[in-house]
Amino acid sequence: MTTLRRSPETILLPPGYSFCALAAGIKVSGRPDLALIESATPAAAAALFTKNRVVAAPLEVGRASLRKSAGRVRAVVVNSGNANCATGKEGRKACEEVCCHTAKLLGVPAAQIFPSSTGIIGVPLPADKIVAKLPGLVTHRASSAAAALTFAQAILTTDTRPKIAAQRFRIGKQEVTIFGVAKGAGMIHPQLATMLVYLLTDAAATPRQLRQLLEEASDPSLNAMSVDGDISTNDTVLLLANGRSKVSVKNPALRKKFSAALTEVCQSLAEQIVSDGEGVKHVIRLFVEEARNRDEGMIVARTIAHSALVKTAWAGADPNWGRILAAVGRCGLAIDPSRVSILIANQMVCKDGVSHPFDEKQAHQSLSEPVCDIRIQLRRGTSAVRFLTTDLTAEYVHINANYST
Amino acid sequence: MTTLRRSPETILLPPGYSFCALAAGIKVSGRPDLALIESATPAAAAALFTKNRVVAAPLEVGRASLRKSAGRVRAVVVNSGNANCATGKEGRKACEEVCCHTAKLLGVPAAQIFPSSTGIIGVPLPADKIVAKLPGLVTHRASSAAAALTFAQAILTTDTRPKIAAQRFRIGKQEVTIFGVAKGAGMIHPQLATMLVYLLTDAAATPRQLRQLLEEASDPSLNAMSVDGDISTNDTVLLLANGRSKVSVKNPALRKKFSAALTEVCQSLAEQIVSDGEGVKHVIRLFVEEARNRDEGMIVARTIAHSALVKTAWAGADPNWGRILAAVGRCGLAIDPSRVSILIANQMVCKDGVSHPFDEKQAHQSLSEPVCDIRIQLRRGTSAVRFLTTDLTAEYVHINANYST
Repeated sequence: MTTLRRSPETILLPPGYSFCALAAGIKVSGRPDLALIESATPAAAAALFTKNRVVAAPLEVGRASLRKSAGRVRAVVVNSGNANCATGKEGRKACEEVCCHTAKLLGVPAAQIFPSSTGIIGVPLPADKIVAKLPGLVTHRASSAAAALTFAQAILTTDTRPKIAAQRFRIGKQEVTIFGVAKGAGMIHPQLATMLVYLLTDAAATPRQLRQLLEEASDPSLNAMSVDGDISTNDTVLLLANGRSKVSVKNPALRKKFSAALTEVCQSLAEQIVSDGEGVKHVIRLFVEEARNRDEGMIVARTIAHSALVKTAWAGADPNWGRILAAVGRCGLAIDPSRVSILIANQMVCKDGVSHPFDEKQAHQSLSEPVCDIRIQLRRGTSAVRFLTTDLTAEYVHINANYST
Repeated sequence: MTTLRRSPETILLPPGYSFCALAAGIKVSGRPDLALIESATPAAAAALFTKNRVVAAPLEVGRASLRKSAGRVRAVVVNSGNANCATGKEGRKACEEVCCHTAKLLGVPAAQIFPSSTGIIGVPLPADKIVAKLPGLVTHRASSAAAALTFAQAILTTDTRPKIAAQRFRIGKQEVTIFGVAKGAGMIHPQLATMLVYLLTDAAATPRQLRQLLEEASDPSLNAMSVDGDISTNDTVLLLANGRSKVSVKNPALRKKFSAALTEVCQSLAEQIVSDGEGVKHVIRLFVEEARNRDEGMIVARTIAHSALVKTAWAGADPNWGRILAAVGRCGLAIDPSRVSILIANQMVCKDGVSHPFDEKQAHQSLSEPVCDIRIQLRRGTSAVRFLTTDLTAEYVHINANYST
């Protein structure tokens, strides 16, 4: 049976990072909604942002700050409960105010503060509420597993559990740690989802090296998943490296190990995000095989993963390959359906575009598991992609249709 | 209050067409599932087919027949309960067998029989069941409103009501009638949706003239709507013209009137299909305005109409413009969000990409109506498109997740 990665029992932290979280009154629930990561020394940084043209204020500010600081970050300030998106100039001002106050409290340049927000769109960010809590947030930071866990909890919205992953490995006598924390695709209020991912390491690297490593690691993991196909306006992935381990990624042996470990951390976070997606009952691992290239495989995977018909069939554990084949047929590529085969778990259900005899009960059983693999073979080339996605349940509709006024 | 077109109280039929329907045992329910339209003389024909690369057998056969007959049709044979799709060569053979038998019974060439199927994918078509019922189907055909209504009912699957529209107008002393009948985007078993539309007229026209008229009429109607974004493998729109009225569309005055009437019929059928979509509680008329061109407007409309987040917000009558703006932002066009404005019914809710003060209760009320208009203004040009779509409800999920074995 296929299983997904989960948060580890013990939290491995790289040295040099401290954490804090508290409630600033942004979330109506009164739960923690303001969180801090501080690096004792300026860490090299690389970030990936949403591809949505509607970009939240903290992403604009964070991108500009990384440019100004030449890729150095001393602290990350995150609020949940408000996305600070579609808030115009006022939104950017509010974000800058939070960064400025944090910088003053830490005695560092404002450009070394990296901001994030997640929550409701189009509502002004209550910067005063945040600023009032910053002194406490800075004072009570700690480099403990417990503090890291409070951070992981405070950035959540409709997620049901914190998402953490870590890898530790040796290069000669040196130990290198990568710690990752994420919030998943959930809504707060009935508003927009956001993925936030923070990756911390004690390896030594330049921002440019980090960026390449981050892209390599997130392409097959964080960039190859979807709950509902809606790209958030606030998606952010940040990788910080403080160099404490004294091991540099310039070292080819370290680079290789580091890249593998970072990919593993990202993969674990991706699996945790998808399996904690809104209303999700079944996770599907799509394998699009024999594509001409990766782009082609991703187009097929995304079309299947975003089909309402396919996703609702999965909700019913229905081995309904006709809907999958029809999604392949409308993906925009010149795919010959008479070459397409489909497997559910290990059973061929469609061969060369037509029905292949299979045990329906067993296929239904496979799809009833928490995770099920589905393979689509295109017979066009040798490229393969893996894409994590979910069913679409009535629970998802309830969560997102629940108008609260 | 906005309202949608409905089926008329009285059915207007052009002369020269007869109808019949009966149960051939394809649907498990035992309901009528085999239907015939016969034209007393060979009618000029034009057809539009699905853009899905996975194409059902009857579409392949029908396309080839139209070519062979130089665009002449004597009869349309439709079965519901089985899509005859992903059935390979056997599927095409089964379809040809049905056409051959119908042709023999009517004493016409097989290429003048136009076949359609709608229903479950990947299951062999029981041609024998159909062939056994063809003599009765041909014998009992009648050119009455009652017979036309039984045809409209027999082609339905999960639709809840038949979909009929008609227009009659005069050119000098001559009367011209256009009659349309459709089945909507519903599932049978938990399988794929299909739109079938048949348009009959007594105007005189060549297949080429009909094709142009059909494209003009369906672009702003049948091609500008969506329930769930899944393009069927069986979608077919067929227009027949038997020339009985002796009025030719070569006459510019007739052409103009005819085109307007045909568009009206298609628009009515489109509205009936969308409002009878699976689980639909609210129909939304999207107006994308100030686009550079029609293609751009359609891309924006489709991205909004296919966003799970936007559709679930509509299910809750939630005036959640942030989700609409975010969908615009990810549509793939270089749209500047700071120029985008959004109106719900007559209220501006987002102006120049940021929140605009509005009466939330009233917006909620507008979205609670069976139909609501939403306008997205891009400030990029002067093109405007209208696109009919729906909410995504838990009922939709139940209908499509209901695995029946």
